[in-house]
Amino acid sequence: MDEYRGQKVLITGGLGFIGSNLAIRLVEAGASVTILDSLDPTCGANYFNIESIRANVDVVEGNTCDLALVKKLVRGTQFIFNLAGHVSHFESMQEPFADLQMNTIGPLTVLEACKHENREARVIYAGTRQAYGRPASLPLEETQLLKPVDVNGVNKMAGEWYHIVYHQAHGMPAVSLRLANTYGPRQLVKHARQGFIGWFIKQAIEGAEIQVFGDGQQLRAFNYVDDVVDAMLIAGINDRVIGDYFNLGGGQPMTLEAFVQLLLRIAGRGSYRIVPFPPEKKSINIGSVYSSSEKFNAATGWAPRISLDVGLARTVEYYQRCRAHYW
Amino acid sequence: MDEYRGQKVLITGGLGFIGSNLAIRLVEAGASVTILDSLDPTCGANYFNIESIRANVDVVEGNTCDLALVKKLVRGTQFIFNLAGHVSHFESMQEPFADLQMNTIGPLTVLEACKHENREARVIYAGTRQAYGRPASLPLEETQLLKPVDVNGVNKMAGEWYHIVYHQAHGMPAVSLRLANTYGPRQLVKHARQGFIGWFIKQAIEGAEIQVFGDGQQLRAFNYVDDVVDAMLIAGINDRVIGDYFNLGGGQPMTLEAFVQLLLRIAGRGSYRIVPFPPEKKSINIGSVYSSSEKFNAATGWAPRISLDVGLARTVEYYQRCRAHYW
Repeated sequence: MDEYRGQKVLITGGLGFIGSNLAIRLVEAGASVTILDSLDPTCGANYFNIESIRANVDVVEGNTCDLALVKKLVRGTQFIFNLAGHVSHFESMQEPFADLQMNTIGPLTVLEACKHENREARVIYAGTRQAYGRPASLPLEETQLLKPVDVNGVNKMAGEWYHIVYHQAHGMPAVSLRLANTYGPRQLVKHARQGFIGWFIKQAIEGAEIQVFGDGQQLRAFNYVDDVVDAMLIAGINDRVIGDYFNLGGGQPMTLEAFVQLLLRIAGRGSYRIVPFPPEKKSINIGSVYSSSEKFNAATGWAPRISLDVGLARTVEYYQRCRAHYW
Repeated sequence: MDEYRGQKVLITGGLGFIGSNLAIRLVEAGASVTILDSLDPTCGANYFNIESIRANVDVVEGNTCDLALVKKLVRGTQFIFNLAGHVSHFESMQEPFADLQMNTIGPLTVLEACKHENREARVIYAGTRQAYGRPASLPLEETQLLKPVDVNGVNKMAGEWYHIVYHQAHGMPAVSLRLANTYGPRQLVKHARQGFIGWFIKQAIEGAEIQVFGDGQQLRAFNYVDDVVDAMLIAGINDRVIGDYFNLGGGQPMTLEAFVQLLLRIAGRGSYRIVPFPPEKKSINIGSVYSSSEKFNAATGWAPRISLDVGLARTVEYYQRCRAHYW
């Protein structure tokens, strides 16, 4: 990743899960990193996430919807990782305007700032598998219709398409990766509202009983955060991906029940129980889902490298060690 | 349409083109109609549009983004035509946040108001063919991917999908029709920013020279506004369409050049010239495009009834007669 050495990089949402892991890798690669983060209490920002690089990054506490601020930050920047956003499907149904603000106005503001100040900057957007909704067939491919089942999915779909439009209309080199079930160190695990994985990990470490909704037979495939960071860094320097969108598929799909069993084995603690969906979650449940990353692999050669065993072991070890900062 | 007799109906954007034609039909059908319109100067609101029913409708001047106001208006209402929005592709690229406000926050506010106050209300959304972008094949069918090419297309896509999501998650009976190239009386014709049809009609009536961008061979199919109003009224009372989205196709596709020639013949005045696209319009141009309404026809039996000759003749006659209110 020598292409990032000495380059100016902006990461929105850089105190959060994926943003902070990305920031650490970019600092290691010799980039000059600025983080913009709103520290919204409903999001995953955590200063401890960047503890190891605290002296080597600029952190700007501010909102990606603040056009004047973002305009200043994008000037002279070569790479922008447009990651700030809200990830809770459930909360998006309760607070749809907050989700809209963060996932629609925020990314659009970043693009608009670049349109005015810096059309050369590569913009890498964190899209989501959620935009597909319930899959028509598996694995999900990019040729399938986007049929989001919750407000978060709608807003993230719009956030992605602004990037495609700004590429086509203004020639700006933007790209979207559709993430799915990313896990690893630095994820918010305090509560279940940002996805089940972090929550399950916390409960396993505590020796608590994990509740698996449905019948536990829903299939998922998981991406270790280092693999996702790799994909983002590759998307930043590979010209073949510009103006397009790509699934990031994970490893072998497995049932939620098998995932939990593996997690409990690795944690050496905890138990689980299969319980019916609460009604308000059932209505936005998407069943079995996993993605094909063949399109991204064909364009870039990327494939996930960290197996679920190894990734989960690293993750459990991280939270055991740094528990005080995440509980 | 006896189903509307004595029913409470709310039309957002009801002073505009399609909204006002719909209001007139609903008043004739015996409905109790309330119009909510912001009179935004960049939109098509015009009090003259509802001149004939002025004494028979309630007009509320206000913004669809005003949740408290919309909550009040949806209480006890049986039908909501969610039409308020911005239609300019070109302006959406220059003022993306204004477009987002009107086409994303507005419709979401109406749905959120219904979620809190009245989940039984039928909500009929005016979607758009624009969400497809450049078609992969013709005619456009609902199985094609949405690939919007401008900010307006992205925001209207999101606006539509909120309706589908609120149906699935909250059981609210919403439906979206994807409109395309609607024309007829009460359209804004003052300038070209709300589509070329009204602008061409005005110029023909004035005996001016119409500029056709590109090579004039782009195909379009046109919908007379009465047919579109029919479709919306049908969508309001047919249970088979709930939770779904449908193209409204027009009549036989024809080239823009042939359309202009027909228009000039009917107006008996004017001329035209084929000129290259200005660069900022070329980048969001979608080429030839027309939709199939087979899906909507199969569900409801709807088909356009007014031929282009008849529709254009009525339209030209209307603007000649009421010119003072539209020029």
